[in-house]
Amino acid sequence: MYTVTVRDHFMIAHSFKGEAFGPAQRLHGATYVVDLEFRRPGLDAEGMVVDIGRAGEVLRAVLGGLNYHNLDDEPAFTGHNTTSEFLARVVFDRIVAAIGRGALGPGARAVESVRVTLHESHVASASFEGRVNGAP
Amino acid sequence: MYTVTVRDHFMIAHSFKGEAFGPAQRLHGATYVVDLEFRRPGLDAEGMVVDIGRAGEVLRAVLGGLNYHNLDDEPAFTGHNTTSEFLARVVFDRIVAAIGRGALGPGARAVESVRVTLHESHVASASFEGRVNGAP
Amino acid sequence: MYTVTVRDHFMIAHSFKGEAFGPAQRLHGATYVVDLEFRRPGLDAEGMVVDIGRAGEVLRAVLGGLNYHNLDDEPAFTGHNTTSEFLARVVFDRIVAAIGRGALGPGARAVESVRVTLHESHVASASFEGRVNGAP
Amino acid sequence: MYTVTVRDHFMIAHSFKGEAFGPAQRLHGATYVVDLEFRRPGLDAEGMVVDIGRAGEVLRAVLGGLNYHNLDDEPAFTGHNTTSEFLARVVFDRIVAAIGRGALGPGARAVESVRVTLHESHVASASFEGRVNGAP
Amino acid sequence: MYTVTVRDHFMIAHSFKGEAFGPAQRLHGATYVVDLEFRRPGLDAEGMVVDIGRAGEVLRAVLGGLNYHNLDDEPAFTGHNTTSEFLARVVFDRIVAAIGRGALGPGARAVESVRVTLHESHVASASFEGRVNGAP
Amino acid sequence: MYTVTVRDHFMIAHSFKGEAFGPAQRLHGATYVVDLEFRRPGLDAEGMVVDIGRAGEVLRAVLGGLNYHNLDDEPAFTGHNTTSEFLARVVFDRIVAAIGRGALGPGARAVESVRVTLHESHVASASFEGRVNGAP
Repeated sequence: MYTVTVRDHFMIAHSFKGEAFGPAQRLHGATYVVDLEFRRPGLDAEGMVVDIGRAGEVLRAVLGGLNYHNLDDEPAFTGHNTTSEFLARVVFDRIVAAIGRGALGPGARAVESVRVTLHESHVASASFEGRVNGAP
Repeated sequence: MYTVTVRDHFMIAHSFKGEAFGPAQRLHGATYVVDLEFRRPGLDAEGMVVDIGRAGEVLRAVLGGLNYHNLDDEPAFTGHNTTSEFLARVVFDRIVAAIGRGALGPGARAVESVRVTLHESHVASASFEGRVNGAP
Repeated sequence: MYTVTVRDHFMIAHSFKGEAFGPAQRLHGATYVVDLEFRRPGLDAEGMVVDIGRAGEVLRAVLGGLNYHNLDDEPAFTGHNTTSEFLARVVFDRIVAAIGRGALGPGARAVESVRVTLHESHVASASFEGRVNGAP
Repeated sequence: MYTVTVRDHFMIAHSFKGEAFGPAQRLHGATYVVDLEFRRPGLDAEGMVVDIGRAGEVLRAVLGGLNYHNLDDEPAFTGHNTTSEFLARVVFDRIVAAIGRGALGPGARAVESVRVTLHESHVASASFEGRVNGAP
Repeated sequence: MYTVTVRDHFMIAHSFKGEAFGPAQRLHGATYVVDLEFRRPGLDAEGMVVDIGRAGEVLRAVLGGLNYHNLDDEPAFTGHNTTSEFLARVVFDRIVAAIGRGALGPGARAVESVRVTLHESHVASASFEGRVNGAP
Repeated sequence: MYTVTVRDHFMIAHSFKGEAFGPAQRLHGATYVVDLEFRRPGLDAEGMVVDIGRAGEVLRAVLGGLNYHNLDDEPAFTGHNTTSEFLARVVFDRIVAAIGRGALGPGARAVESVRVTLHESHVASASFEGRVNGAP
């Protein structure tokens, strides 16, 4: 199995609901350094898992929809705690949708699975991985 | 699959038995920077894999049982070389036991698997991963 | 010259005023991974620059005054953009004050200078360094 | 499952064929920082996945066959783009061959799978993982 | 003293002349991960050392003049070994020139010194630092 | 000013004397990841601060005198706590001595200062820097 990984980041404000979160119930924020992995059993005709340039652009575009936002104000997240693991899934879903509409090129539809990791500090991270719908 | 990872470290002395270890047969030591990963297919009601605060406390407590010890003097390790991979398994077993007795909260019993990685330097690491007994 | 460095982090929300900040004028947030360096020409009687355990506790206490805060609501920062470089200076001033009141032990008053670095992502950081008032 | 990982690096020149590569069609180069992981369900009699010293030597020898080369001149790669993912597979195949001929010691034949990751920068990497032929 | 640092990278081919370089006399290449530091005793009216967004753009533009090049073919480097330390100076000179012509904004002319670090692998780096001509 | 940095590591056992050290008074150990920096105002005829290959060998040789040792048994350290900052000075002195006897080549005598940093974990490090005796 081949994997290609690209990295970028985004910075947001949010707060959490629930006693378990302690002081993180207050409005605070985070930098998320994001690793996006594409997995595929074989390479395309040019020797690539995905076009790494386009992968970086798609990641930047997806993170651009979150970057410099107060996630407490995002209608899409109403009723959810935007924990790192929750956000990893959000980014995963948006990347898979981008693959589906061809944003990474037609070859990227051969990508079998994707993993998204959000590093929230030097001591904590969260990720979501799953198969890409309709992967062969 | 969701993953949450927390990092901490411990510092020990030990020596190895066996010619393969060369100069590491002498009493020496190591800093182990530890990554502890919890994996689970879904999130709990609050949007978490585990309570990351409690995860950090449990990891600190488990590593506290090894930190600043000379492992050559630990009865639990008699007859074993305390290699990085062996110690990764030791930490894994103790984390799984902590989950079992509820130290991470009742929700953490839904954790399906755990991975423990010990970084012994900038160029070498070892890990052990396995299912959590009784995971659904 | 000897240096000892300890690392910790804090997570805040804030926004910036001024067109130069572009989308960062919106309420967002950041994780700051903080490196705190103490510099001193000689070691104390026990062979230390500072007691590294106490240094970590003091850093944690100082960052605790910022952690999980919305800096836009802090009276101390009214009229200032809480950029990384500005916050590096804030942490510096509070560390120097802690040295002054003996929180790091009497020996720490021999510390000549301090440097505080705030890493806001994997590609950007800021720092402030200066002499400790009254250093010999 | 146990894993042991060792790290080393190599530096090469190459160019790519295909419009997708944009300016990377020109002769350029890369440093590849390589993580080599060995996976095995149990430990050997001495408590190891593999002899980490020999693992490092074998990795160095394999990378030595690529280090300071212009890959455009390597007959083995004619007709291929030597992308990071392609090179990860090349290193994988050579490590597996080394295991097969006993370069890592007889015990290393119990290694079940190997993963090779090539970090080409602080924001991009690629890997190949697969089973070791004839693993039990 | 305040410092702001931004990171980017470039990838080049080159070879060295001189027996001391051993196999690096062959055509090979490198990824250089670049840290660019700006130092200044005070902040501007908006609380910045430099506009970090513009700093990133200027760094990208300067590295774009080297990225995906075979440095052996660059007339500017004829007769020089393009070692990491030599290239750190090249990047420094071009950044200082960019400051001089106002590419970082008029405020950036208050920058007192600049440091450029090139990381060529996980175990080696080189840097050049100097005052900015005409700094107050 | 030019700087070249090389990295290596060593692993030791030791214990500390003095209540300030708490549990670190017990026999334990550490991995020290070492960054060795050479500083020099100009480059040599081949465009180097020092021959980076020789620098790596000299660092390896110096660390080899400590690696896999129990520092409590080293006569050279009797009566001293072998803290990270103390050991940074030890490595510094031995590197400077190596420069003095020509181990880095005659050109290395132009090195003006040296800095040695010992990373003892992901959250703590210590360093010593000083001029090289007899530097021009």
